[in-house]
Amino acid sequence: MTEVALAFDLGGTELRGALVGSGGRVAAHVSAPTMAGAGSEAVIGQIITLAGELLTQHPRSKVAGIGVGAPGPLDPKAGIVIAPPTLAGWHDVPLSDILGQHFGLPVRLENDANAAALGEWRFGAGCGTGSMVFVTVSTGIGGGVIAEGHIFHGRRGLAAEIGHMTITGEGERCFCGAVGCFEAVASGTALGRRATALTAPGDGSVLRRLSAGGDVSARHVIEAARAGDISALELVEAEANWLGIGFTNLLHLYSPELIVMGGGLANGFDLLAPSIRAVVQQRAMPAYRDVPIVPALLGSQAGLIGAASLILWEGESGAPLAMALDEDRASERAAAQEASHG
Amino acid sequence: MTEVALAFDLGGTELRGALVGSGGRVAAHVSAPTMAGAGSEAVIGQIITLAGELLTQHPRSKVAGIGVGAPGPLDPKAGIVIAPPTLAGWHDVPLSDILGQHFGLPVRLENDANAAALGEWRFGAGCGTGSMVFVTVSTGIGGGVIAEGHIFHGRRGLAAEIGHMTITGEGERCFCGAVGCFEAVASGTALGRRATALTAPGDGSVLRRLSAGGDVSARHVIEAARAGDISALELVEAEANWLGIGFTNLLHLYSPELIVMGGGLANGFDLLAPSIRAVVQQRAMPAYRDVPIVPALLGSQAGLIGAASLILWEGESGAPLAMALDEDRASERAAAQEASHG
Repeated sequence: MTEVALAFDLGGTELRGALVGSGGRVAAHVSAPTMAGAGSEAVIGQIITLAGELLTQHPRSKVAGIGVGAPGPLDPKAGIVIAPPTLAGWHDVPLSDILGQHFGLPVRLENDANAAALGEWRFGAGCGTGSMVFVTVSTGIGGGVIAEGHIFHGRRGLAAEIGHMTITGEGERCFCGAVGCFEAVASGTALGRRATALTAPGDGSVLRRLSAGGDVSARHVIEAARAGDISALELVEAEANWLGIGFTNLLHLYSPELIVMGGGLANGFDLLAPSIRAVVQQRAMPAYRDVPIVPALLGSQAGLIGAASLILWEGESGAPLAMALDEDRASERAAAQEASHG
Repeated sequence: MTEVALAFDLGGTELRGALVGSGGRVAAHVSAPTMAGAGSEAVIGQIITLAGELLTQHPRSKVAGIGVGAPGPLDPKAGIVIAPPTLAGWHDVPLSDILGQHFGLPVRLENDANAAALGEWRFGAGCGTGSMVFVTVSTGIGGGVIAEGHIFHGRRGLAAEIGHMTITGEGERCFCGAVGCFEAVASGTALGRRATALTAPGDGSVLRRLSAGGDVSARHVIEAARAGDISALELVEAEANWLGIGFTNLLHLYSPELIVMGGGLANGFDLLAPSIRAVVQQRAMPAYRDVPIVPALLGSQAGLIGAASLILWEGESGAPLAMALDEDRASERAAAQEASHG
């Protein structure tokens, strides 16, 4: 009987839970639509219910503790969820204390993007590196930075708000109020918006056929580009240009050993990567140009696995984590990175 | 007899040396024009000569070691100066080993911007904070980041290359080849260039009178703005706007407790600060808006003092450094910060 962690990924739409073993393997997985409008007590009740389901499935598990990834802003040290915009009625909720008292287990809380970065670093694409920037590109752009074996937190855990790094003076105003945010020009949402503006319902374009006449999404663009559609390929090129500008900034600012790209748009990583790398070669100073840019490997499980690792590796941040990696995942990782460098 | 450090600030134009005491006090100071074209052996000879002068002035000093700030790229851990663009004939020079063997003392090497950041953090504007971003705005823009009591180095010591963070799509091409670098639009050089373009020799403007008809420099702009010249005030406003955009990015990316602005343009900090802060209030997400932005306090001595601190505080990064601060400097600092917040 090996030790496991209870892990939760608390999203505004979906609440997911898992039992994760010491090799980063997800032994059991449950989920429920988050009762995001019902306040913190209701959602904490959901967490407790899901935990019960997991422990019922694996009654002989030796649970070492509970790791939770939750939307920011939050205070990871104090274990307090401050005021997430996607969860109504959450104000300075001491989630770690509440769950700790209920279960009698240690609880660790982390920003969701940082949890995903930790997952990719300890068991995914960043395994074995000392420093890494994880960028998640989907509806928005978020990220987490690992430096010298630790999450780079900054004051109040607010570092690495990379989606709101200004990279241009053009484009539509970001929801945050500024113009030119990385997220506003390079997110999946921005790509879909450009594709929608470029086409019209019923124009016979591949993009509109894929979207059944509705708004075109980033997923449709990737699908059309894979089919060789010229408009979609040009949109992918423009998207890669923005990502390349942003990634170059991240290289200059954090100087990581590796950039890992996750999020929904990582599905199109193979299409985007050549142009992203060309932009980095062109814009980054020479000493930064050889830093690999690779796709995430854990997909939507990165956050859960990272949250679990808060428990399973507490106090062992310098340990050779690659040793704990399952053999099959190690070879999978090697194959994927081989492909992504090709 | 208290311990002192030999400190050197190796610039492309000037080589400066000092004996620095444990309170950050410069006990003796010497300098010489750097023999920048003569190769590493000649310059190392200069360092040895200056060290001899300092020790002759203070023969009873107990020297604990030698701290050196030098232009990057360099490897601080290995003590190697890699290939600074401002020093001809320096390629992978093991400066720490060479000086260590000559003097029989421990030697610590650091990037010059990081050394200045350390100086300001330990004895200047950042004293007492746990994290800080130091931005030097002069000919170019450089910086150093202190996070959780340490310099944030990144891979090969290359983190915090903040001058080459892209913040816009406009402006002249940066020397690095990219467009829109923070340095290319917000350095003192960029400000001088805008002022020169706005005026013409003999046009009777205040700016050209100050520059005696030649190219207008950032210093002239600040001087004219202080005298109430409208053109200069508009140039200061535009400059502050660029600095505000860049500083907002630094808040979002590093989430420091404090931003410290140094370099030549810090002479105009009082004129620039209101607009810089207004831009930050407008562009930063709410949780970052209360981070103080203050002027550097150590001027051109920051690098020397920081280099000395590499020796005097080695292994004590968590110590309450404010305790070591001289009383007079503590009150000077309090007064300056009071003024800068006002």
